[in-house]
Amino acid sequence: MTNTDNSNGRITVDYTNMIRSSVGKRGYTVKQLVGMEQVAEQAYMQVQANRGKGMQGWMDLHSNQSKVVEDILACAKSVRSKFDTFVLLGIGGSALGPIAVFNALCHLYHNELPDNKRNAPRFYCVDNVDPVRLSQLLDIIDVKTTMFNIVTKSGSTSETMSQYLIIECMLKQQLGDEYRHHIIATTSRDKGNLIKLAKKNKYKTFFIDEGVGGRFCELSPVGLLPAAVLGIDIRQLLQGAKCMDMECSSPKMFDNPALLLAVLQKMAMDNGNNITVCMPYADNLKYIADWFAQLWAESLGKAVDRQGNTVNVGQTPVKALGVTDQHSQVQLYAEGPFDKVIMFLAVEQFSKSVTIPQGCEEYENVNFLCGHTLEELMNTELYATKYALTKSGKLNYTITLPSITPHSIGQLLQLFMMQTAYCGELLNIDTYNQPGVEGGKNATYALLGRKGYEQLREEIGSSDKQDYIL
Amino acid sequence: MTNTDNSNGRITVDYTNMIRSSVGKRGYTVKQLVGMEQVAEQAYMQVQANRGKGMQGWMDLHSNQSKVVEDILACAKSVRSKFDTFVLLGIGGSALGPIAVFNALCHLYHNELPDNKRNAPRFYCVDNVDPVRLSQLLDIIDVKTTMFNIVTKSGSTSETMSQYLIIECMLKQQLGDEYRHHIIATTSRDKGNLIKLAKKNKYKTFFIDEGVGGRFCELSPVGLLPAAVLGIDIRQLLQGAKCMDMECSSPKMFDNPALLLAVLQKMAMDNGNNITVCMPYADNLKYIADWFAQLWAESLGKAVDRQGNTVNVGQTPVKALGVTDQHSQVQLYAEGPFDKVIMFLAVEQFSKSVTIPQGCEEYENVNFLCGHTLEELMNTELYATKYALTKSGKLNYTITLPSITPHSIGQLLQLFMMQTAYCGELLNIDTYNQPGVEGGKNATYALLGRKGYEQLREEIGSSDKQDYIL
Repeated sequence: MTNTDNSNGRITVDYTNMIRSSVGKRGYTVKQLVGMEQVAEQAYMQVQANRGKGMQGWMDLHSNQSKVVEDILACAKSVRSKFDTFVLLGIGGSALGPIAVFNALCHLYHNELPDNKRNAPRFYCVDNVDPVRLSQLLDIIDVKTTMFNIVTKSGSTSETMSQYLIIECMLKQQLGDEYRHHIIATTSRDKGNLIKLAKKNKYKTFFIDEGVGGRFCELSPVGLLPAAVLGIDIRQLLQGAKCMDMECSSPKMFDNPALLLAVLQKMAMDNGNNITVCMPYADNLKYIADWFAQLWAESLGKAVDRQGNTVNVGQTPVKALGVTDQHSQVQLYAEGPFDKVIMFLAVEQFSKSVTIPQGCEEYENVNFLCGHTLEELMNTELYATKYALTKSGKLNYTITLPSITPHSIGQLLQLFMMQTAYCGELLNIDTYNQPGVEGGKNATYALLGRKGYEQLREEIGSSDKQDYIL
Repeated sequence: MTNTDNSNGRITVDYTNMIRSSVGKRGYTVKQLVGMEQVAEQAYMQVQANRGKGMQGWMDLHSNQSKVVEDILACAKSVRSKFDTFVLLGIGGSALGPIAVFNALCHLYHNELPDNKRNAPRFYCVDNVDPVRLSQLLDIIDVKTTMFNIVTKSGSTSETMSQYLIIECMLKQQLGDEYRHHIIATTSRDKGNLIKLAKKNKYKTFFIDEGVGGRFCELSPVGLLPAAVLGIDIRQLLQGAKCMDMECSSPKMFDNPALLLAVLQKMAMDNGNNITVCMPYADNLKYIADWFAQLWAESLGKAVDRQGNTVNVGQTPVKALGVTDQHSQVQLYAEGPFDKVIMFLAVEQFSKSVTIPQGCEEYENVNFLCGHTLEELMNTELYATKYALTKSGKLNYTITLPSITPHSIGQLLQLFMMQTAYCGELLNIDTYNQPGVEGGKNATYALLGRKGYEQLREEIGSSDKQDYIL
C-alpha cells in the first residue's frame, strides 16, 4: 500500500464534536470519558469471552469461511454466465445487508445499464409482500433467465415463504422440472422447512450458521452470494472486516474505535439522547443507514435487562442522506430538542469527479460555485453542517472512509457490528434476541387461521374496538 | 360514486389507539381530549384567518390554478411526445413531493419498463450533488432526448444551480442553440437568478408563488408538471386536496381530522414523545414518508416561539415501511422507550391481487398461508402489529386510504399540510421559516470563497480542532 493508493486505507473516527471543549455543555469532558474506561473494559472482556460462542458466531466470519467463499465464487460464476437477473427473496437482515452492499459497490443505476455496459446480472431484492410490488417486478423480469435466491434461516418467515411458494409455482409452470435450477436456498443447515424443501427438490444450498443472527449475517453467504454474483470482490470485503476486527482488539477504549463509539452512545443515551441519526454524505452509502438502523434498533431496543428488570431501553435510529436532507431534516437537528446524536459518514475520495463550469459571471450568489467540483461542494457542505450543528451544541461524530471499496465497506460493517455488541453489554441486555416481534407474528398466525392459535384469535376478536374514527 | 367504486372515497383516521381505554395509561381520556377543544379552535381560527396570506398561500392551490393547470397539461403533452426522459433538478421540497407522487401513482419499476409498456417518459429526480450519482445518471440517459426541469424558487440554491450549470454546459455542447428547448425552469415569478436566466435564455417557465414555501409546494407547478408529464391526473390530485380541505373546514376538532391529529400529536409531544414514525403499509406510499418527514421536521423543529422565547421544540420523524420494517424496527417500537407515536398508513384495496398457491401441505407453519392473498397477508400483518404495539402500550393511529389514486393522494397531502399548520399554531412557532439551515449555508459560502463571507471563513478556520480522532 502506497500513499496515493488508499483503496485499503483505514476508516477513521472523529469524535471531537462529542467533547465539551468543542460542542459545549452537553458534550463530555475527557475526565468523564476516562471515567468510563473500566466499564468499557468489562464490556470488551465480556464480548471477547463469548467470541464465536452462542449468537456471537458472526464475529469470525471474516476468517473462517475460506471453503464457503470458494463454493460461493464458483456458484456466482455459473449464475453470472447463465442468468441475466438475480432476485433475492428475503426480509429484514436477509435483505438489508445485500441491498446496502449492492448500492455501495455497484453502479447507482446498475439495473438500468444496457446489457453491454453491465458486467453482472440485474439485482432485485423483494423484501415486502405488497402484491403490487411483486406483480410489477414480474413485468420487468423474465423468470426463464432469472435466478431466485430464497433467504430465510428459520425457513418459516411468512413473507419469504409466501414469495417462495408464488415463485416456485410460476417457475414450475414455465419451466417444468428445470425449475429447480432457478432456485438457490440460503438457510439453516439442519433446522426448518426450507432445508427440507431444498433437499427434497435438490436446490443448490448455502448455509447460515446457528450463531449468526439475521442482523449480523451480511458477511455470511446471505450477503456474500449476491455480492459475488454482482462481481464484488468478497475476499476484500472479508479482509476489510478482518482489519477492523484487529483495530478493535484492544480492551482500552481509546485504542478501540467500536468500543469508544459504544461508550459515547451509552453516555449520550444516559443523558436523554434517545435518537441517533445516521447521515452518510454519499449516495453509495445511503442504504448502509438502513442496514445500520435494523442492527441498532433490534439489538438495543429491549424491554428487560439480563436480570429481567424492566428497562425499556433503545435508541431510535433515523436515516438521513447528505447533502439532500440538509434541505429536509437539518433545520430540526439544528434548532429542535437536544435529543439526538448525529453520526456522519464521510468519503474522502469519490470515484468520479465533476467540475461545475463557468457561465454565471453576472450572479455572484451562483458564480462562487463555478470552478469547484461537486465532490468539493459535497464535502464542504458536510464540513459546514458539522460546524453549524456543533455551534448549536448538537452532539455529532464522523466516520470517514478513505474511499468506497469492498475493503472499506467490510471495515464499516464490522465496526458497526462490534459497536452494537459492546453497546449491548454496556446496557446489560441480550443484544441478540427479538422477543418484541413475537406478539405481532403470533397475532398474524391467529388471524390467518394457523392451527394452535385459536385462543389468541378469540382474544384479538374481542378486543377489536374502533370507536374513534374520523 | 357507488359503493363498489372507491376511487374517490374518503381517507379515514382511526385514533382509537391514542385513547386510554385502548392503549392504557399513556393514552388520553376523552375528557382530556375535550379539554383541548378550546385551544384547538384557537389554532383553527388563526390558520383560517391567514388563509392565502403570507406563507399560507399553499392552502388554496387546489382551487386557484385552473389556468396554470391548462398550461401545465399542454406543456406536459408536448414533453411526452418529444422526450423519452424527464429529469428534475431540485432538492428538498422541490424533489420530495415529485418523488412521492411518482412512486405512489406510477408503476413501481416505471423507468425499467420497456418503451412499449411505459406510457410516459422515464423520470429521475437528482436531489443531491454526489458526483458519482450525476455521472452515473449520464450513463443511462441521452441528453438529446431528455427534458430537464430546474426547480428552485430562490434561484440561488447551491446544489440545484450547480447541477444546472453542468447540464446547461453539456446541452450546449451537444445541441448548440437548440439546448434551450431542453430546459424548463420552475421558479419565482420575479425574484432570483433563475427567472433572469430563464428570460435571457428563453426557457419555458412555471412559477412558484411567494406564499408557497418549499415543503408546501407539491400542489404548485413544482409537483404538477412532473406529475402531468408522467400521465397522472393532476385535476384529480387537486380535487382530492380540495375534498380534504372541506373535511378540515370545522373549528371543532372532532369534525376536523387534521386538527384532531395536530392536537393528539401536541399532547403526545407534551408527554415526552419526541419521535413520530410514519409507517405506510404499501410500497407505493414509501416516499410519502420522506415527504412527510421534511414537512414535519422543518416546520415544527424550531428554537424559538413567536415571542422569541427559547423552546427547542420539534418531533423527529422516522420513516418506516410495513411489513418490511417489522423485521427491523418493530422490536424497538414494541419493547423500547415510550417515546414515540406510530402513524400507520393503510390501503384498503390494492390495485393488484396475488394469491399464495398451495404446495406446502406437509409444513403447517407455512401451509396456513396457502390460499390467502398477499394483500390479505399485508393487511393482516398491519392489524397484528397494531394489536401487539397497542398491547405494549405504544401510542399509534392509522390513516386509511380506500385505494391509491390521484384523488386519495391529494387528500393525504392536504391532510398532512393542514395538520402541520395547526400543529405549528399549537406550538406557537413560525411554521414556515427555516432559520436553522442558514448557519450551514453561510459556512459553505465562506469555505467556497463567496464574497462577503471572509470573516466567517476566518472564524471557521480558527475553530478547526480535530484532536479526537481514532
